[in-house]
Amino acid sequence: MPDTLPPAEPRPAASLPSGLLDALLALLGPRGVLTDPADIAPHLSDWRNLYRGSSPCVLRPANTGELAAAVKLCAAAGVPMVPQGGNTSMVGGATPDESGRQVVVALTRMNRIRDIDPVDLTMTAEAGVVLKTAQEAAAGAGCLFPLSLGAEGTATIGGVLSTNAGGNTTVRYGNARELMLGIEAVLPDGQVLHGLRRLRKDNTGYALRHLFVGGEGTLGFVTAATLKLFPAPRETEVAFCAVRDEDAALALFRRFRDRDDSAVRAFEYMSGTGIDLALRHIEGATLPLAERADHYVLVDLATPRPDGGLRALMEAVLEEALEAGEVLDAAIGESEAQRGAIWRLREEHPEAQKREGASVKNDVSVPVSRVPEMIRRCSAALVELIPGSRPVPFGHMGDGNIHMNLEQPEGADPAAFLARSHDIMDTVNAVVRDLDGSFSAEHGVGRLKTDMVADWRGGAEIDLMRRIKAAVDPQGLMNPGKVLD
Amino acid sequence: MPDTLPPAEPRPAASLPSGLLDALLALLGPRGVLTDPADIAPHLSDWRNLYRGSSPCVLRPANTGELAAAVKLCAAAGVPMVPQGGNTSMVGGATPDESGRQVVVALTRMNRIRDIDPVDLTMTAEAGVVLKTAQEAAAGAGCLFPLSLGAEGTATIGGVLSTNAGGNTTVRYGNARELMLGIEAVLPDGQVLHGLRRLRKDNTGYALRHLFVGGEGTLGFVTAATLKLFPAPRETEVAFCAVRDEDAALALFRRFRDRDDSAVRAFEYMSGTGIDLALRHIEGATLPLAERADHYVLVDLATPRPDGGLRALMEAVLEEALEAGEVLDAAIGESEAQRGAIWRLREEHPEAQKREGASVKNDVSVPVSRVPEMIRRCSAALVELIPGSRPVPFGHMGDGNIHMNLEQPEGADPAAFLARSHDIMDTVNAVVRDLDGSFSAEHGVGRLKTDMVADWRGGAEIDLMRRIKAAVDPQGLMNPGKVLD
Repeated sequence: MPDTLPPAEPRPAASLPSGLLDALLALLGPRGVLTDPADIAPHLSDWRNLYRGSSPCVLRPANTGELAAAVKLCAAAGVPMVPQGGNTSMVGGATPDESGRQVVVALTRMNRIRDIDPVDLTMTAEAGVVLKTAQEAAAGAGCLFPLSLGAEGTATIGGVLSTNAGGNTTVRYGNARELMLGIEAVLPDGQVLHGLRRLRKDNTGYALRHLFVGGEGTLGFVTAATLKLFPAPRETEVAFCAVRDEDAALALFRRFRDRDDSAVRAFEYMSGTGIDLALRHIEGATLPLAERADHYVLVDLATPRPDGGLRALMEAVLEEALEAGEVLDAAIGESEAQRGAIWRLREEHPEAQKREGASVKNDVSVPVSRVPEMIRRCSAALVELIPGSRPVPFGHMGDGNIHMNLEQPEGADPAAFLARSHDIMDTVNAVVRDLDGSFSAEHGVGRLKTDMVADWRGGAEIDLMRRIKAAVDPQGLMNPGKVLD
Repeated sequence: MPDTLPPAEPRPAASLPSGLLDALLALLGPRGVLTDPADIAPHLSDWRNLYRGSSPCVLRPANTGELAAAVKLCAAAGVPMVPQGGNTSMVGGATPDESGRQVVVALTRMNRIRDIDPVDLTMTAEAGVVLKTAQEAAAGAGCLFPLSLGAEGTATIGGVLSTNAGGNTTVRYGNARELMLGIEAVLPDGQVLHGLRRLRKDNTGYALRHLFVGGEGTLGFVTAATLKLFPAPRETEVAFCAVRDEDAALALFRRFRDRDDSAVRAFEYMSGTGIDLALRHIEGATLPLAERADHYVLVDLATPRPDGGLRALMEAVLEEALEAGEVLDAAIGESEAQRGAIWRLREEHPEAQKREGASVKNDVSVPVSRVPEMIRRCSAALVELIPGSRPVPFGHMGDGNIHMNLEQPEGADPAAFLARSHDIMDTVNAVVRDLDGSFSAEHGVGRLKTDMVADWRGGAEIDLMRRIKAAVDPQGLMNPGKVLD
């Protein structure tokens, strides 16, 4: 779905069952229950403006105990609940539907960092802690919390765990799931699951925490998590490279990875079209190379070793790849400012696409070895589908996750282009499926892709998902209409 | 529980429901159904000889399709099934009970490595592949499959995943769980879950695979898995160090980890008592240092970097620690043989304890920062409980997992000592619980520790586990009496 479709007109908010609002007010106080339409409004639309729902009030509990008590009240009244953190979902995962029956529960007031331990390399943070705040707290303790993504200034720990967010550093540190040691959660009936263990090994029953990660709030509320930290990097190197083609990009990744996989913090692919758009629309953006190319990569190396030798490693690998004809030209950032400028070319891709016109997003993944074929086949199929349209593939080549986005033809009518959104997604998904890939690499399912879950994850898989949903949330009150339709 | 208790006398095997044996024979053929008591016998006792059960036959399906069909037959007849791989469980997790009603299903014939891809760094292996075989296959493709543990010559991929095995390299590469990308499983009703995706990012519904990992066969059969590989190390260094005390051991770990966490492949603690026993009982074992000490550590560094500089790193850190008084003396292995000899001192700990007399095992974990306190407090409490008994703590200090074992007093009656097994476990667990630890770090629950699950993981946690068990296995046919009682 596009970013710019006119949102559906919401129905008027229904009122809560008799007595519930008073009980919630008595429990949470006036700061904990928003009822003014102006206060509620920001919680009803999603980040991409795909959906606009309705909610009779927004609950804002101050701590786990308040949340658990509020959930018990809602559950007893049969009221569906929609957990919300920073509300940055790309798939409409954190907003209520149009019925007016679903109550938004915002966890943003639960924003304490309960504990940081630089010996254990752990941090226990509440759901409402903003990702960037968590990163900064870790840095303040001389450590690294490596999860990093575009929305990090707004997205929360509860959200990134509930959606198993990925981002730029997955190639080195894994997804949010791999960064989580323990979880505290409130179940759909208001029970509190106390699982904030900070153990590296603990084999004492089912891994319940892994259901809440990636459960997108349909199985309960993640209220806090114990997260893994890492020693802070002491050396960093960032390079921007023009490469011959998609295969050369992959070959370059392999050269770095096989030399020192632990040093490769990010490896991002960008197309010539994407960089052209960034240079056109982003103020101050400049190409750090002499000539334009059709394919680029960003390489980010980091190590905690004081004598890490990353500069020598970077230069040696780039030289090899230049000689092999894979790399056409490369620039290594000489300062924090230059490294930031290189990263900005990558990070401003979504903004540049938006300014250029209408575009359709596809957050897909394939096995790493198949990324070049995926980019080529998707690009060809998309241009065949809509002549003149401009594929803008970019993203996390090192973990097989490419944002296979499509920009409208120059000068075409945006609305006519956006009307083809489903055709565009289907075209990409057909190739991805043929390559054993996934229709949602890091954005999740939310409301946007529930039909794809049913289609791609059929048989025993969706049967088991439904049985687990029914077992954990028998009333079906948690974030209805998300993940499973 | 001790290694040497006399096993319970099994009851005679009950026969299968009428017609089932014929149907299974028709399906699996004579190689696929063992009925001769001599053939069945090795499948009925566990590795530690804690339990001896009974089974009317042993099923040995040749592939996933055969297994699924056999499970359907057993499920229709209401016959409980006990999955078995290498049968190396330390907690009686893979053997049938004494009722004679449970059928052992051995997955050892399903032992194909279906695929290895050095670009994707993935391997897809069937459940019956022996761990060591998987390691060797990865090495043959120029890669590393890092999971490594004492039983690796016998334990299977299905078993290490079902129990979320840990071992020596968890500090660097994680547990079996973190090495798994996708799973194929047969559900308790015979449905096949096709989840062998080799994607680094895939957020498309609940993480079902994480239920089967650590589910200990109570939710279904793991039949194959797609595993993560890593670039093979090009440099390795191993040192054996005498350290001042437990705190000094932890301080040394921090020095290495903070310098280069990705280089620390293993960091193992051993007590003076444990090394004394190894030197006494293990043929050819010698102390690589001039003097005996009360505390030792083994440091294993590895990197794929050709210019890794690990020797310099090892020497620099050891020198700092010597100057700080943490390390008393150290020997760095100068050859593969010397490195192997150092590792042997650690790996032969269980065998040395067995030869010395009766001992009781405690596989516990605490947050890494609390390991020194845990060792000290447990040791003191154990000697107070049984004067003259000898604590032999050893193991994976880098991930907080210590085998807090206790050797009988010299010259005492083994049976009298073993009669105190439960007191000994309770004594250790009381300290571990006080330190926010776990009663089972890497061995799992099996049959031995179901009462501890109920005690430690009560409230919402065990309630949710039971609901999930009921949802996935409503008839309760999968490995009954394990994990949840």
